[in-house]
Amino acid sequence: MGRVFNFSPGPSVLPEAVLKKAASELVEYGASGQSVMEMSHRSKEYEEIIGACEASLRELMSIPQNYKVLFMQGGASLQFACVPMNLLNKTKKADYVVSGQFSAKAFEEAQKYGEISCVGSSKEVNFSRVPELDKKSFDPTADYFHICQNNTIYGTRFTSLPDTGGVPLVADMSSCILSEPCDVGRYGLIYAGAQKNVAPAGLTLVIVREDLIGNARPDIPAVMDYKIMADNGSMYNTPPCYAIYMMGLVLKWIKTEFGGLEGMKAHNEAKAAILYDFLDSSSLFKPTAEKASRSLMNVTFVTGDGEIDKRFCSEAAKNGFVNLKGHRSVGGMRASIYNAMPVEGIKQLVRFMKEFEKNA
Amino acid sequence: MGRVFNFSPGPSVLPEAVLKKAASELVEYGASGQSVMEMSHRSKEYEEIIGACEASLRELMSIPQNYKVLFMQGGASLQFACVPMNLLNKTKKADYVVSGQFSAKAFEEAQKYGEISCVGSSKEVNFSRVPELDKKSFDPTADYFHICQNNTIYGTRFTSLPDTGGVPLVADMSSCILSEPCDVGRYGLIYAGAQKNVAPAGLTLVIVREDLIGNARPDIPAVMDYKIMADNGSMYNTPPCYAIYMMGLVLKWIKTEFGGLEGMKAHNEAKAAILYDFLDSSSLFKPTAEKASRSLMNVTFVTGDGEIDKRFCSEAAKNGFVNLKGHRSVGGMRASIYNAMPVEGIKQLVRFMKEFEKNA
Repeated sequence: MGRVFNFSPGPSVLPEAVLKKAASELVEYGASGQSVMEMSHRSKEYEEIIGACEASLRELMSIPQNYKVLFMQGGASLQFACVPMNLLNKTKKADYVVSGQFSAKAFEEAQKYGEISCVGSSKEVNFSRVPELDKKSFDPTADYFHICQNNTIYGTRFTSLPDTGGVPLVADMSSCILSEPCDVGRYGLIYAGAQKNVAPAGLTLVIVREDLIGNARPDIPAVMDYKIMADNGSMYNTPPCYAIYMMGLVLKWIKTEFGGLEGMKAHNEAKAAILYDFLDSSSLFKPTAEKASRSLMNVTFVTGDGEIDKRFCSEAAKNGFVNLKGHRSVGGMRASIYNAMPVEGIKQLVRFMKEFEKNA
Repeated sequence: MGRVFNFSPGPSVLPEAVLKKAASELVEYGASGQSVMEMSHRSKEYEEIIGACEASLRELMSIPQNYKVLFMQGGASLQFACVPMNLLNKTKKADYVVSGQFSAKAFEEAQKYGEISCVGSSKEVNFSRVPELDKKSFDPTADYFHICQNNTIYGTRFTSLPDTGGVPLVADMSSCILSEPCDVGRYGLIYAGAQKNVAPAGLTLVIVREDLIGNARPDIPAVMDYKIMADNGSMYNTPPCYAIYMMGLVLKWIKTEFGGLEGMKAHNEAKAAILYDFLDSSSLFKPTAEKASRSLMNVTFVTGDGEIDKRFCSEAAKNGFVNLKGHRSVGGMRASIYNAMPVEGIKQLVRFMKEFEKNA
């Protein structure tokens, strides 16, 4: 059987060229006589791999010199605690926007460590858009301001950033990092679980402005302390070496195939347009996210009839379009169309949807 | 160039057969049409992989039913905090044995969370043996008692377990897990970073007696709470899926090639004997660990002359024996000979050492 089109929300599709390259050098990497999985993280070979990976990320995202790049573990979920444990160090207050399930989890976790306010929620519309925000409700003395930039479950995203004044903006970019250019200087801290656009699961990226680190809670676990990780080049302990190697291959693929994040954005906009245009014209399938908040990465839709939704997902899977079932809190379907999803996957999916619609 | 013999302390050598199998199915796993790296951790395919992996571990280690197996992230270093944050819940006291650098780190980290005593240290002999322990110094009211069972840097191990009475014994087994049979019932909790005997870096195993969990500190990060991880089958958030898949392949290899941990032990004892026997008879190389504490996994030795040590490591590397340089706190050499190191690797190394000795 050939490769399917995998619309999983994460872990999800990786570029086929990257997988083939990884397979070809899995047993022996270059002239090292060993697998990358077997390399000492302190070896010269591995230092080149992690160094090149960081350099590629800095180049692609134009990361300013006064930002550290950290390779961590534990996913966005551990960052939900790392962020407050590191950054709540002056007033111990922070503002959170609740735009979906993960930002709600982040908001809940942060309450263990300080005085956390919700300055906007779209829960009353089942997160079908990002909340409207009123700057007057923001606390100018907060230690930071937190958003989840793309909401995987609900298919929404922030298309513009809140103006937080001098308060550092912290963004969970797990499901949109590297999908388009990013003005890193607008943020105090960006974090992302790797398993959507970056690498296999098990690696978490943190990009943090230097002046924000070094004042963590005294009882923070050492490997969660950004300063300790930064001072040790993410090697205070053994990093998730193979996922970092895979990330390096993915970044190279973005550069080679798309020329960078502008090209990546054009690719993603083209893909999303094909799917949203069809949904806007369909008599059977309806998009669930409000137009102004639509995600480029996760496209959510329903037929309005649970039985038809179910039949659609099942027939789609038989035709090689897998993991289209929506999250239970939205129902229906969700097509996660991350960087590595080819245009062809979207075109074929839409063709299949049209066929299904005709026969429904 | 062919594969080298890799004596790295970790990440380290993996079985060549496992690497080849992984390479062969990296792009497409079975009939799934996708890589394991791309699978949703909630998919049926992946649930089979993680389920089979846990079942194999339970069988190989004869893990009693009242123990949970958790797949975590962050390495032993994060466990240095997880253990006290979860287990210090009655008297908030714990006893630690300091038998090397990592147990010293564990001891230091735990002090953030309770009243921690050192009940034995072999620092005064540069950790060349595990400390002698006096049961009278143990606190019978401690919430747990912590050891590092094998000391990677110093080439030592506990050959018998301290009698802690009713106090749960907690062991860091990062560098000896799966190397020989283990009476899990003697322990309250076992943890291990995977990157030595289990899988690539990025996965941490925890085996914990059920009655010890469920009373973590209220401010513990959710993904560090053993109860939350146990209740969610290690899927409260996305696990390090690919490393778990690799672990499954490694466990299958142990079962197939050695029949289980008795066979693994015989293999490891045979390898260690070849190397220690040579060291005991050598006029140039001297083992550094005291005989009664010798590790089966890490064999440390010196010539007594830093220049000769350096030349030895350099010439060894040229001959395909890599990563033999000892840790700076011991100096000299260290051959880490984990499960996946073949007997042939040891035989050839000893042959090379004899040749070097003759010409020295």
